[in-house]
This record gives sequence, C-alpha cells and structure tokens, in this order.
Amino acid sequence: MGIDPGLANTGFGVVRVAGSRMTAIDGGTIEVPPDAPPERRLRTIHESLAELIQWHEPESVALESLYFGKNVRSALGVGQARGVIMLAAAERDLGCFDYTPQAVKLAVCGNGSAGKDQVKHMVGVLLGLPCEPPSDHAADALAVAVCHAAHLQGASALNPVPPATRAGAPEVALQ
Amino acid sequence: MGIDPGLANTGFGVVRVAGSRMTAIDGGTIEVPPDAPPERRLRTIHESLAELIQWHEPESVALESLYFGKNVRSALGVGQARGVIMLAAAERDLGCFDYTPQAVKLAVCGNGSAGKDQVKHMVGVLLGLPCEPPSDHAADALAVAVCHAAHLQGASALNPVPPATRAGAPEVALQ
Repeated sequence: MGIDPGLANTGFGVVRVAGSRMTAIDGGTIEVPPDAPPERRLRTIHESLAELIQWHEPESVALESLYFGKNVRSALGVGQARGVIMLAAAERDLGCFDYTPQAVKLAVCGNGSAGKDQVKHMVGVLLGLPCEPPSDHAADALAVAVCHAAHLQGASALNPVPPATRAGAPEVALQ
Repeated sequence: MGIDPGLANTGFGVVRVAGSRMTAIDGGTIEVPPDAPPERRLRTIHESLAELIQWHEPESVALESLYFGKNVRSALGVGQARGVIMLAAAERDLGCFDYTPQAVKLAVCGNGSAGKDQVKHMVGVLLGLPCEPPSDHAADALAVAVCHAAHLQGASALNPVPPATRAGAPEVALQ
C-alpha cells in the first residue's frame, strides 16, 4: 500500500504484485473537511486508513517522504498526518517504508524530476489501468506503491504490463 | 492535561483547577526505546497516552507547539508524535490547544525567554509541589497545563498556592 500523506488530502493506492505483473487493487483520496479542527481531521484519516488496511491486508505500507525544501509549518502538518498513518500500520504490525519524491519519480518514470502528468501517465501504463488515476494524490500513492514493490522485487518488476494484458480486465477498483 | 511532544520522550502533566487553586494530579515522561522503528514508537506513545486520558479524563489537552527555529527534519518527527497525541485526544472527543514555548514561559514565569530551571522552579511553586518535577519533559508538560488552565481561567489562576496550603498534603502523584 502506498500513501501520499497530507492533512487535507491523503492519497492511497494498493498494488498487487504477482511475478513481474503489477495490478492496482484500489486507489483514491481520503478527503477531510478543511474547516474541521486538526485533531478531528487526524481522527478521520486514521479511521479511514485503518479500515483500508483491515480490508486489503497489505504486506507493508510505503509513504512518500517530505520534500525537505518545504517549510517547517507544512512539515509539522504533514508530520501529524504521517503520525496517524504510521500508527494505523503499526496497529496491524505492518512495517513502514519511506521514499523521497525523487526516488518515486525515478522508479516510475526513470527520471527523478519528472512532472505530475508524467507520473500519472506512467502509473497508468505500469499498472495497466483502463483510465487515469482519479486524482494526483491517488496517482502519487500508487506511484509510491509501485516504487516500493519494485524496490522489493528488483527492477524487473518495472517492466510495463504488456498491451495484451493491459487490454483485458485489469484487477482495478479505483474510487 | 499538558503535553510536551517528542518522538523519543513525550512529557505529560495533569493539573486540576479549583477556584484559584491549581494542583498537579500526575506528571511524567513516556519514554520509547530509541532503536525501535518510528511506527512502533508512535504506537507506544499513542497507547500510553490513550491510557492516561482514559484514567484522568481531562477536560482538554494542551500541547507545546514547535519552536519554528527548528529544522524541517525535527519538525517532521515532532509532527508525527503530535499526530498520534492529537488522535488520542480526538478519540475521546477532547479538544486540543496549542501554546508556543514563549507563551508557556510567559504564563508560568512572567518572562517569555525564561530558562528551563526557572520554568521547573515556577511549576513547583505554582502547583505547590513537594519536590521538583521528575524530568524537564514532565516540567514542560505541567507548565503547558498551567498555561492552558490560566488561559481558561484568567490571570488569577496564576497566583502561587499560599504556603499554608503548599505545606499540607498536595494532591500529587508524580511518576
């Protein structure tokens, strides 16, 4: 399971790996009302993610780490969201793994400074999606999951799904 | 309940206010093994704090906010700890309140740039403690609780406990 953490929008993506084939099982965004107090938003993020983890039973949780060019205030907000996400993983005895945005882009696009559209496109190609991921957050989360899967499996996992397979009925239920 | 959040050591302090009298009910530090993975540390912090909240049933939770001179990496770590602390509060429908270190020092010592020893000393005086708080983290957490209580009650709550009362058996069970 890949996560793009944020206090307002947290993207999630679940990827299944079988041999050199990767398929998207789920992907979407946990949105929280921006006018709710932070502690209520964190509760919503934690509850939603705990439910997703219980449902999908992922082997591990990979998070996009913060771009350290960000300022301290936004680091604190993202840190709070990361805290409850990592807690949801630990409560199911799952390990957490961190990947920088650069590492994710490099794994998915072969270029550590690829743009958002390129990431979205390549996530679709690698996972054989019939349509684009529903949001940038979902695309980023799926990209983190792909990056983590590739890291676990070696670079061969990053071969695009062949068109024949892609044209079939991919195992995908994007929100 | 006041909290001094940290990924390695989280201080907590519980203060009861009755009229102009403030007493310390509990105070200590949640220590987590530094070699444990961050998600396990967050789980320990969350579990310990959830237990303390269930036990003491505080009216609200006040946190010392980050000193923004800190760097992004430490902001992220403290942010993660804050996330699970705020979650523990929200799970009991408690509101969270933030005070800067300067505001806490001002409320407790009358000086926003007071040193650690001065804060420790004044926390002891204001709460009529028979001994010094057990750690800097506990002292800071009690100071945040005092600051929040004073904020809710107005400045009169900050009158030191009179010596006669202080000499009695203060309601204190510091860890």
